Amino acid sequence: MKLATLKDGTRDGQLAVVSKDLASAHFADAIAPTLQRALDDWQFVAPQLEDLYQTLNLGKARHAFAFDARRCMAPLPRACQWLDGSVYANHFELLTRARGAQVPESYRIEPTMYQGGSDDFLGPCEDAVFGSEDWGIDFEAELAVIVDDVPMGASPARAAQRIRLVTLANDWSLRNLVAGELAKGFGFLQSKPACAFAPVAVTPDELGEAWRDTMLHRPVQVHWNGRKVGEADAGADAVFTFAQLLAHAAHTRNLRAGSIVGAGTVSNRDPARGWSCIAEARARETIDSGEPHTGYMRFGDRVRIEVFDDLGLSLFGAIDQQVVQRAR
Amino acid sequence: MKLATLKDGTRDGQLAVVSKDLASAHFADAIAPTLQRALDDWQFVAPQLEDLYQTLNLGKARHAFAFDARRCMAPLPRACQWLDGSVYANHFELLTRARGAQVPESYRIEPTMYQGGSDDFLGPCEDAVFGSEDWGIDFEAELAVIVDDVPMGASPARAAQRIRLVTLANDWSLRNLVAGELAKGFGFLQSKPACAFAPVAVTPDELGEAWRDTMLHRPVQVHWNGRKVGEADAGADAVFTFAQLLAHAAHTRNLRAGSIVGAGTVSNRDPARGWSCIAEARARETIDSGEPHTGYMRFGDRVRIEVFDDLGLSLFGAIDQQVVQRAR
Repeated sequence: MKLATLKDGTRDGQLAVVSKDLASAHFADAIAPTLQRALDDWQFVAPQLEDLYQTLNLGKARHAFAFDARRCMAPLPRACQWLDGSVYANHFELLTRARGAQVPESYRIEPTMYQGGSDDFLGPCEDAVFGSEDWGIDFEAELAVIVDDVPMGASPARAAQRIRLVTLANDWSLRNLVAGELAKGFGFLQSKPACAFAPVAVTPDELGEAWRDTMLHRPVQVHWNGRKVGEADAGADAVFTFAQLLAHAAHTRNLRAGSIVGAGTVSNRDPARGWSCIAEARARETIDSGEPHTGYMRFGDRVRIEVFDDLGLSLFGAIDQQVVQRAR
Repeated sequence: MKLATLKDGTRDGQLAVVSKDLASAHFADAIAPTLQRALDDWQFVAPQLEDLYQTLNLGKARHAFAFDARRCMAPLPRACQWLDGSVYANHFELLTRARGAQVPESYRIEPTMYQGGSDDFLGPCEDAVFGSEDWGIDFEAELAVIVDDVPMGASPARAAQRIRLVTLANDWSLRNLVAGELAKGFGFLQSKPACAFAPVAVTPDELGEAWRDTMLHRPVQVHWNGRKVGEADAGADAVFTFAQLLAHAAHTRNLRAGSIVGAGTVSNRDPARGWSCIAEARARETIDSGEPHTGYMRFGDRVRIEVFDDLGLSLFGAIDQQVVQRAR
């Protein structure tokens, strides 16, 4: 099934079920008021949401309305946890080299993952507001899973069974603040502001054969100001799966329901697949010609991120955001 | 006023008001079901909680009951954000040197802060469960604030006005996992498992003259297996205030209501003040004699952390936890 959170003036929004073709929706608040509440009691709530989803897809839901992604908040507008791995070797290697650091062999042995902020996620069509273009504004197209409780010490196989939803994220990054922060040794903070998420989160069964080994084997289309810049296959060139990321995160602690785990910027070795963040383009340019030519985003720029199935149906709806200067 | 969250079988618990002397409590769910909901609408909710608090302190609340810290969850059992700064120069310098790293001068110019997990906080008397003593189990006694919305770019003065509650935390740390994780450059993950919090969170006005410049000027008592090992003054030897930590965190993003920000392990230069984490004791021993003598915590060990006012009244109640081996 496909789930979305619609704006209703509250911090957590209102849960809705969305039809497979993303054409119509139906409020689900009679079942669970918010997506977090559904995840808190998934075994009880999910079958009821599934029933509504089937009815909606048959065109028989009584109060269905046209689905409009612009009314969406992030599926979880705020969450108890956002963890982001970096599983695509090409992205990790290019960006590590670009900041002049040595690529550690360990990144293939054990997942590299950071703890991100989860208090203020952006909806798919909401403006991304920043204080300065000098921060080095960049998008990052990523897949993410939303999990049920994962107990401390869970194996990858057990953790895999706790994946409830899959969605798409734009992990906004402020490149010119990264190096200074990582030099301090405590990870990202100012350089990783609020992420945005796709209009809908979907259960893995919606993805059919494209969901294998807890990875989505589909290209992620990225458009920057209307120009297609990337369509990396999220199923290729990854050194870890979501199941392995979850087991790594749960090694010393429980993960609680509603935790969101990303797999990092989708990236393929094949240059024909383009890039899913500007930093990669700049890294390739630097390798090819000694310096980067592509600038980071400017105020007014747009980015659009979307994944289609093999029939051309949008799986999660599009993230489509504009970069806007903060009002002073 | 003083607020607590009592266990009721749900993930977020039930909000209660606690008397100034921590002797009695009264459910506040008729005003707001949970502390997060109170923080979501603080201007409207807080005056009603304050009325109940005054009535309770006068002994006139109709359904008051004896307050028992063992029934408490963390004030926010899960939160949308946990950020932890490191403002006590002595702690930062000792631990940085102890892991063989250079102490960067930058830590006095700009706060050092990490993004922690906030999905699974422990109550004050709950067991701290770990898989192995080899992880290097250590406590960290800290002060923390819980904030209302802080807009991106807020000044320290403006951020200070958004502090709603002050509390005490035990930021559990797995020392033997720290160096390997920090070497990967993406910050702490496995080495910072679930934090615990004191039974109550209090509004800054409760702290009277001890709350100055957004810092608590009181000693933090730490007992390990019944032996007092530390009573560092949280108002001394800090290079940044909570207001400055908040402004740093909000430089590129909004902080949303219910975000919790810690100031790092309380630590004084004066060795007579003891230590608030074992790693500091070991670092001092290494400096004095070439090697550490004090081992980390063993299964069955207890730690107790508490702050008293100048009349001997416990401000937040005690964190009093036992270290327990995970069942296999």
